[in-house]
Amino acid sequence: MPKVHNFSAGPCILPNEVFEKSAESILNFNESGLSLIEISHRSTDFVAVMEEARKLVREILNVPDEYEVLFLQGGASLGFLTAAYNLMGSHKTGGYLVTGAWAKKAAKEASFMGTSITIASSEDKNFNYIPKDYTLENNIDYFHVTSNNTIFGTQIKKFYKGDIPLACDMSSDIFSRKVNIEDFDLIYAGAQKNMGPAGTTLYICKKEIFGKSSVPIPTMLDLKTHSDKDSMFNTPPVFPIYASMLNLRWLKKIGGLSFIEKQNEKKSDLIYKQIDDSSLFRGTANIEDRSSMNVTFTLTNDALNETFNKMLVEANINGLKGHRSVGGFRASMYNAMPYESVNILVEIMRELENKKG
Amino acid sequence: MPKVHNFSAGPCILPNEVFEKSAESILNFNESGLSLIEISHRSTDFVAVMEEARKLVREILNVPDEYEVLFLQGGASLGFLTAAYNLMGSHKTGGYLVTGAWAKKAAKEASFMGTSITIASSEDKNFNYIPKDYTLENNIDYFHVTSNNTIFGTQIKKFYKGDIPLACDMSSDIFSRKVNIEDFDLIYAGAQKNMGPAGTTLYICKKEIFGKSSVPIPTMLDLKTHSDKDSMFNTPPVFPIYASMLNLRWLKKIGGLSFIEKQNEKKSDLIYKQIDDSSLFRGTANIEDRSSMNVTFTLTNDALNETFNKMLVEANINGLKGHRSVGGFRASMYNAMPYESVNILVEIMRELENKKG
Repeated sequence: MPKVHNFSAGPCILPNEVFEKSAESILNFNESGLSLIEISHRSTDFVAVMEEARKLVREILNVPDEYEVLFLQGGASLGFLTAAYNLMGSHKTGGYLVTGAWAKKAAKEASFMGTSITIASSEDKNFNYIPKDYTLENNIDYFHVTSNNTIFGTQIKKFYKGDIPLACDMSSDIFSRKVNIEDFDLIYAGAQKNMGPAGTTLYICKKEIFGKSSVPIPTMLDLKTHSDKDSMFNTPPVFPIYASMLNLRWLKKIGGLSFIEKQNEKKSDLIYKQIDDSSLFRGTANIEDRSSMNVTFTLTNDALNETFNKMLVEANINGLKGHRSVGGFRASMYNAMPYESVNILVEIMRELENKKG
Repeated sequence: MPKVHNFSAGPCILPNEVFEKSAESILNFNESGLSLIEISHRSTDFVAVMEEARKLVREILNVPDEYEVLFLQGGASLGFLTAAYNLMGSHKTGGYLVTGAWAKKAAKEASFMGTSITIASSEDKNFNYIPKDYTLENNIDYFHVTSNNTIFGTQIKKFYKGDIPLACDMSSDIFSRKVNIEDFDLIYAGAQKNMGPAGTTLYICKKEIFGKSSVPIPTMLDLKTHSDKDSMFNTPPVFPIYASMLNLRWLKKIGGLSFIEKQNEKKSDLIYKQIDDSSLFRGTANIEDRSSMNVTFTLTNDALNETFNKMLVEANINGLKGHRSVGGFRASMYNAMPYESVNILVEIMRELENKKG
């Protein structure tokens, strides 16, 4: 049982064994007498890390051979630009499903080398739902979606299937559930939720997109650059990649996506049930679009906020404050979050109910 | 005395106390019961890290108030593009001093939103010198130089002073010697030599360049984006920044640039003297342009390579292999490299001399 229950939205909780083994690597990596962070990234030992990390992504997500797997830098924010550059075709236009603040930012970057079209948006209701009533026409080169909206607590349950290439910012729910990689042409994800510490960004893309863009792509933003050099075109972020590799090893060991998907549902079901069963709490996201990663809710009586916050502090519950654009509370329950921690939160919620309900 | 003498060209040796304290932070950061890599980057504790890191850069390099200091991602390779975007003016042209492989790559990126002109190049002699015989005309918006050429072992000793804004990739010698920040409009540097582990990139730039570019800049490549958000526009690479902060604390404590500059000269003088005093070794860089960071040399008798390599292994000397485009050997002696380690290398060189000279 952890001392502190870390519900932070990201960077977020990772398994203890990742902390232990990565700390050890800083002092003495692979019994070499050298630190992981002082060796050449071209050394046999680090090349093995990069290759194992890429291989684990393939295994865990069942990535077909015709896809490339890369560990780059810049976060999803640079991914917005990279996605647009690499997927621009003859229409020089990307279509965007605007389901939150990040999706909106993604759409903006397409305007630097093309045009972005909003296919559908849920901004009318402060992004509390996933629009589903839209059709795609052949005037766009790709369709861009955000699989999980950390701030608003919504998640796409069923992805678009069709002829338009699909791009997805999967930063906040990759490795949390099964997805069919073949549905996508490009997936990218900042590490700092279910993959590892902040500082590296995963790209999974169809190799056939390389060299097909209708616009000139600056070297570092061209995914082909990195594919040609096995994800080592320039010095990679060594520590974040190593810690991600350890975390992927852990995920594989505990049973991969089949296991973790059920576990994540159990955790989010527990807290959603408490929200729905109580008149004290109100979920902010549309029920059918609720995220299994980030549960957003408010108290129906603002006067109880202070009491609730005090109880959270006493129970060592950390990071439950909602994003300022939604308010209230947000329980982020990434892969490494134990069921026990969620249970403790739910007990606090019940306690508040018993006191004041 | 370290067990292994780490002459790696980068990522490279850092002080032991950086390894120890950063490893500790992975297990329990600031006695919080949480790991550094699982907390929010918006938490008070991490914001304090970012602010201290930026402040230490200001103190150590004596950065004037009218300059911004940012810790971003992407390495110098993304810096090539960022520099060009932010400095393009009415000529839409950058001038480049081509002193090595990286300088050449930097020049290429200007072509994605403008034109690059080679002001002078030392490619005629495999980059073994720094061109000095050139004049700048008013047809360029900025002049771009690489302060130290890691691969070729050359270093600019005297920077351009004049009316053209000066941009500098200072990746491999920043924090190794005194520089006058006011000579530059923009400095950028990958962390993985004298600043910290791979995964963050330092930018120091005149605030007056913000919003002045003649070309539209994608959000993440616009330095103003990051300045407006105090270097926290998106999730920063938490661990690399923390370890860099620890390393800058160490540098300040041991005496800052005045101390380290002398120390670095002492180390490189020792090895250059050995090279010049012996007929067995030949330095590959032009004498007046020799780098104090990376000493490149070859054996005059190739038949001795094997013996020398064997002696290096026996002495626990690591990372001395020269870059494939120069061949021979390269001793990289960054700030944290102890004089004693350089002395051990020089003793091995003398031993070879005595045996075979």
